[in-house]
Amino acid sequence: MSDPFRVGLLGHGTVGAAFAQLLAERADAIATAAGRRPEIAAVLTRSRGDFEEILEGSDTIVELIGGIEPAREYALAALGAGKPVITANKQLLSQHGDELLAAARAGGAQLRYEAAVAGVVPVIRVVRESFAGAHIEKVHGIVNGTTNYILTEMARTGASYADALARAQKLGYAEADPAEDVNGKDAAAKMAILSRLAFHASVALDDVPFEGIEEITSDDIDYAKEFGLVLKLLGVAERRDGGVSVRVFPCFIYGGHPLASVVGPFNAVTLESPAITEVTLSGPGAGGPQTASAVLGDVVSVMSSQGMDLDPADELRFIPGEEVESAFYLYLEVADRPGVLAQVAQILGDNEVSVKSVVQKGMGDNARLVMVVHPVAEGRFSAAVREISKLALLRSPPRSIRVIEEEFME
Amino acid sequence: MSDPFRVGLLGHGTVGAAFAQLLAERADAIATAAGRRPEIAAVLTRSRGDFEEILEGSDTIVELIGGIEPAREYALAALGAGKPVITANKQLLSQHGDELLAAARAGGAQLRYEAAVAGVVPVIRVVRESFAGAHIEKVHGIVNGTTNYILTEMARTGASYADALARAQKLGYAEADPAEDVNGKDAAAKMAILSRLAFHASVALDDVPFEGIEEITSDDIDYAKEFGLVLKLLGVAERRDGGVSVRVFPCFIYGGHPLASVVGPFNAVTLESPAITEVTLSGPGAGGPQTASAVLGDVVSVMSSQGMDLDPADELRFIPGEEVESAFYLYLEVADRPGVLAQVAQILGDNEVSVKSVVQKGMGDNARLVMVVHPVAEGRFSAAVREISKLALLRSPPRSIRVIEEEFME
Repeated sequence: MSDPFRVGLLGHGTVGAAFAQLLAERADAIATAAGRRPEIAAVLTRSRGDFEEILEGSDTIVELIGGIEPAREYALAALGAGKPVITANKQLLSQHGDELLAAARAGGAQLRYEAAVAGVVPVIRVVRESFAGAHIEKVHGIVNGTTNYILTEMARTGASYADALARAQKLGYAEADPAEDVNGKDAAAKMAILSRLAFHASVALDDVPFEGIEEITSDDIDYAKEFGLVLKLLGVAERRDGGVSVRVFPCFIYGGHPLASVVGPFNAVTLESPAITEVTLSGPGAGGPQTASAVLGDVVSVMSSQGMDLDPADELRFIPGEEVESAFYLYLEVADRPGVLAQVAQILGDNEVSVKSVVQKGMGDNARLVMVVHPVAEGRFSAAVREISKLALLRSPPRSIRVIEEEFME
Repeated sequence: MSDPFRVGLLGHGTVGAAFAQLLAERADAIATAAGRRPEIAAVLTRSRGDFEEILEGSDTIVELIGGIEPAREYALAALGAGKPVITANKQLLSQHGDELLAAARAGGAQLRYEAAVAGVVPVIRVVRESFAGAHIEKVHGIVNGTTNYILTEMARTGASYADALARAQKLGYAEADPAEDVNGKDAAAKMAILSRLAFHASVALDDVPFEGIEEITSDDIDYAKEFGLVLKLLGVAERRDGGVSVRVFPCFIYGGHPLASVVGPFNAVTLESPAITEVTLSGPGAGGPQTASAVLGDVVSVMSSQGMDLDPADELRFIPGEEVESAFYLYLEVADRPGVLAQVAQILGDNEVSVKSVVQKGMGDNARLVMVVHPVAEGRFSAAVREISKLALLRSPPRSIRVIEEEFME
């Protein structure tokens, strides 16, 4: 095994601490896969650490201080010294992107910033790498989880803006000072970063007009429902007439639009180009653990620029289908006689299969039992179906299909 | 500018031709961005070309022959010679993955295969790179566009399986011989490739039990609707009890499940891990242009392993908001008197703003006009709203919010 891969961590707030913890948890697995073990070589906080020393003793710098200075100074120094810089700092990137990229090129060092936009949703990598050969026409989506949570709550419960904001703060989806989230500036910074990448154009925060959701009333949301409309705070960047338009604004979309189902603190970004039609990436927006995970992905990329296509590290057992639990839909064509349901229910019960819902349909020669059963080991369910198929009451073989009962956000 | 980046193309069928065309179209843009211009150095088809010569004269091999042999032999030879190999060949990867990865490691060459799974949806890169540091617990989704189109059509129109398949073939969503799509084998191969990556485990096609949709009837889909269920062909790979379970089967999901809204020939994959919660990627499944685009993304990655974080290549004009067209929602609290709507409509018409739908709500002191107008240059709409706001009939300032009217699949 080679020497450890030394990470110099700047900043040890919520995200910094979450990153340090995640890195420690995953270091073994990464070492097995990538051939080098990442470790935090040193941490710079306001009260301890010397930047020059940390830079000297690190293979990469992870900047999680936030804000412009001293983050900018440190990032430029590291890139200038040829050290890769990983940052989650959207302010810095959206205001000093040109300068940072120039420093990265001059120093021959990587600058990675997946965590700066859309949390753990890997939109930066996908635009920079997967679609580097595509001509992206449009990037749009929901890039601020705080406002999406607030709008979802207002629509779901009829709450006022103030009440929904208070709820978001209570749940940790909004900061104590939510100004830059709710006024659209946070989303504008992210759209500046995305547009630069997608259009290979110099776009900075100042180029992006933004409107927020502070003035939205529950009446707006309510009345628009009659037109089948749902309100979202959207970032929209598109090529138009030989130019680009990049903006952030609250906007109604129709209920069937793919972004309409992106609810709560989730983010989603849709990329459009003639070659790819459209691709949508969605997932939780920024949060300590998610941001940490995005930063760690960048660390792995810097360590191993080809990704990890690896020796099978684990000897894993393949679990036989019979042991796996599933819910099932079961369809039976039965004789319309008393006792049919009782017999079927008896067999299911004997095999520990529990019925969730059942509908009896049709009459006489057309009678059918249609039911959904709770999750059960597939072997048990199959045994029950085999027994049921022997019943004289059945007019045709039983039909069954698995059902996924997973929880999801509404 | 450096020497061109020479691509040796094996196979010139639908995908091969689409790739060659896309590469030619995008070569200038990639050259500007990546510093090297990609070009097709040579093409191998059944009737022309010599593999050894092509290998010698290429910087990378793009394998789009399909099937096992001679694709396997060529890929192994190229990797053995230290040349990166890019392939869209799911059969090859799912049956000879261990051998190919070993050859890539031994030769110190990259093996890339984004196009082998989920078309242009960049799930391979995201798993290999973005979430290389995450401990993925589960990968599931819709990885076959043919069957998703068929099931969507059956649910939407009540068509039989045979009729929906015929329609898919007519539209080019299903091949003349659709066997491996509809019986689940195609999806099983993709799940084998995804599981290997996600779990760092040796998973091959033979390890993945699969069931198809050939036996599904429109009755199954119909009855299940009463339970709020939608049918999908799912691939599910998950860690369970110290082992892994990887399977493909038709399955009901509830209408609110995020995968329920993935319709027609689209694919979608959800990745779950404690660190990332869940991230979903969706987009069009395989098709000539989409597959070509995924292959080109891999070419760019091989040329420039750090992605393209680039000098602004284009001098783009920022288009002022007033020139951009939007549809709008407009909310007016008005006096409940005859002629109100006429006055408002007159002003809108004078500014070339066309009303799509309007509702008059409430009466007397509570009367309101709520309307949606067709897309119009924002400057025109603002002018109209300024005029309307001067009307004596108004009880409060007008409120307006943009509306996105985009087409989307239902």
